[in-house]
Amino acid sequence: MSATRMFLDSSGSAPLTPRVTDALRAGFADGWADPNRLHAESRRARALVEGARAAVADVLGAQTEYVHFTPSVNIAFERVTAGICAARRGRDRAVVSAIERDALLDSAHHVTRGHVDLVSVDSLGHLDLAQFSSLTSDPATAVAAVQHANHEIGTVQRLADIHAITQERSVPLIVDATASIGHIEAPQDWDALVANPADWGGPAGLGVVAMRPQTRWLQAWPDGDPWAPGGISVPLALAAAVALQERVEQQQETATRLGGYVDEIRAAFDNLEEVAVVGDTNERLPHVLTAAFLYLDGEPLVTRLDREGIAVGSGSACGKETFEPSRVLEVMGALTHGNLRVGLHPGIAHEDVRRFIEVLPRVISDVKSDMGVFGS
Amino acid sequence: MSATRMFLDSSGSAPLTPRVTDALRAGFADGWADPNRLHAESRRARALVEGARAAVADVLGAQTEYVHFTPSVNIAFERVTAGICAARRGRDRAVVSAIERDALLDSAHHVTRGHVDLVSVDSLGHLDLAQFSSLTSDPATAVAAVQHANHEIGTVQRLADIHAITQERSVPLIVDATASIGHIEAPQDWDALVANPADWGGPAGLGVVAMRPQTRWLQAWPDGDPWAPGGISVPLALAAAVALQERVEQQQETATRLGGYVDEIRAAFDNLEEVAVVGDTNERLPHVLTAAFLYLDGEPLVTRLDREGIAVGSGSACGKETFEPSRVLEVMGALTHGNLRVGLHPGIAHEDVRRFIEVLPRVISDVKSDMGVFGS
Repeated sequence: MSATRMFLDSSGSAPLTPRVTDALRAGFADGWADPNRLHAESRRARALVEGARAAVADVLGAQTEYVHFTPSVNIAFERVTAGICAARRGRDRAVVSAIERDALLDSAHHVTRGHVDLVSVDSLGHLDLAQFSSLTSDPATAVAAVQHANHEIGTVQRLADIHAITQERSVPLIVDATASIGHIEAPQDWDALVANPADWGGPAGLGVVAMRPQTRWLQAWPDGDPWAPGGISVPLALAAAVALQERVEQQQETATRLGGYVDEIRAAFDNLEEVAVVGDTNERLPHVLTAAFLYLDGEPLVTRLDREGIAVGSGSACGKETFEPSRVLEVMGALTHGNLRVGLHPGIAHEDVRRFIEVLPRVISDVKSDMGVFGS
Repeated sequence: MSATRMFLDSSGSAPLTPRVTDALRAGFADGWADPNRLHAESRRARALVEGARAAVADVLGAQTEYVHFTPSVNIAFERVTAGICAARRGRDRAVVSAIERDALLDSAHHVTRGHVDLVSVDSLGHLDLAQFSSLTSDPATAVAAVQHANHEIGTVQRLADIHAITQERSVPLIVDATASIGHIEAPQDWDALVANPADWGGPAGLGVVAMRPQTRWLQAWPDGDPWAPGGISVPLALAAAVALQERVEQQQETATRLGGYVDEIRAAFDNLEEVAVVGDTNERLPHVLTAAFLYLDGEPLVTRLDREGIAVGSGSACGKETFEPSRVLEVMGALTHGNLRVGLHPGIAHEDVRRFIEVLPRVISDVKSDMGVFGS
């Protein structure tokens, strides 16, 4: 990457830090062997994975033997949803917040053969608790799934209230923490949790599932390993754990600093016309921000900023098609044509943010004139 | 790994070469971003994956756009079997050789709900073509699956004859080439092919699927990407392609050299009592060898050799439980209690093989006396 480039799309990926790169090097040197065999090379690989599981479990507040690496976040969702539903015979419905990631919605649809009830959110992105309570009271409810924090707008759900409802109904709650772990305190109100190492500065190509000991599930696919069919990469697991440790050590300081930058960016957007920053300004992830545009597409904004050396996101952060309009914003009732998503990683400096804020009005006005939009 | 250790279990994994390690370093420096976004970081990651696909496709004799990375070999089997069967409505049976890997058998069982016909092999491991022909003539046959070469005994199947049969019956043929690519010439007689980068010296945590343009399949799982739900690790894909290139450049020389070592090891086993080397001595992989023991378990052999600094395999190379008796040997009618599996990677030197041959009789006799077996 050229020295002048600036990566402001850290929602699901970030440049690897030297410490993570070192962990990868060590992992590939010592952890290349199949961890399921008997000899020393295999035992060494197994020890690395076990150490990584323990380190991740510690941050999640989970027990090591109930924390599993999967080959991707999507596979984590597939397996955990299918596994829990398989143990809930006679019940065939999933209750899911309407702003969940596609990967979770797809899994829920597949496992329940389409019997998915979506729960609305308010204009800040918070779950409609009354509707959630009413839908989960259906005795056919096999599972409920709610995210900890939204990957686009940053809103953090009130999981204590949500979990209290599912516990009263004895419905297992899957919490999607793929946008929050490493950024804010790990949630404790869940029966199963999914996390994404690439989102906390680890390498892509892994997912994490944590279960509570009392959460019942059955193996839904016949393969030997229910969580990692065919195994996972040991060096990636090691690096994921090291990245998490690094983030957690600096979590409070990073959140304060990046939260300040996000406030500055929000203020800059507030000064512009026909654009609104979406989501809760208090109960939120510190490092992400989405701005919704009334008349502009996201794609030319991303492309023009990219030419200025600035990488940002647009569209559904985790949608199937990168540039389909954001389903999250649609569900929230945000009046939006295109959107622009910023995700800050700890390597971002104040001067980067200042340059972004400086460049932004000109880029927006360039896109407007390209599109023939000259104000309303 | 200590300088005196010797890794003779290269069936599915091998120490990474400096060239592969360099590729990983480059991949993590330049390919950490999500390849599905619009900015420069993403485009760079995408270019690396595309280059890797093209390089692998070239070796496989496939078209780049029909070659896909998956997060593991097992997921490759799951997706390719489910995808092809979904396009064969009205047909619900799979015809599969009895010595396929568990991952393929499990997928076939799952997709067909247990309608799997197993085809026998002869005492050298070759498919019973008459039985295969008869079973695939059932009009309910959705798919056939046969391995290119066996990961334990090394026997290479006669795929031209096998493919001629499936073509006559218009049954799609999946070829499991997870043990052969990078070791011998890639097979050309297939409608779909699965390969394993870790087996050719690449990193673990990836699988490969190649399809022929005319092979019909339907997406069986709702997720966006049918082959890599949630994506794959770009650096692993790059390193996989580099590893394959390195192996292919030296393929003939390596095969000759390692084939010579395997001949020496076979001769050493032939000098011992109550042990037989299994598989075809001519139509075979050059670098693997399995010896079946009449009265000895595999586990203590592996453990004692490991203490001598020598890593070998045992049990089903790719079974669910590492130390269950080998199903492959059972199916072949080999009289076997335990077994010992050797897989040589190109870094193995003649002196390593000599040391293994020297140590072997003593280790076997130690295990015998531990077990209270003093000859028949």
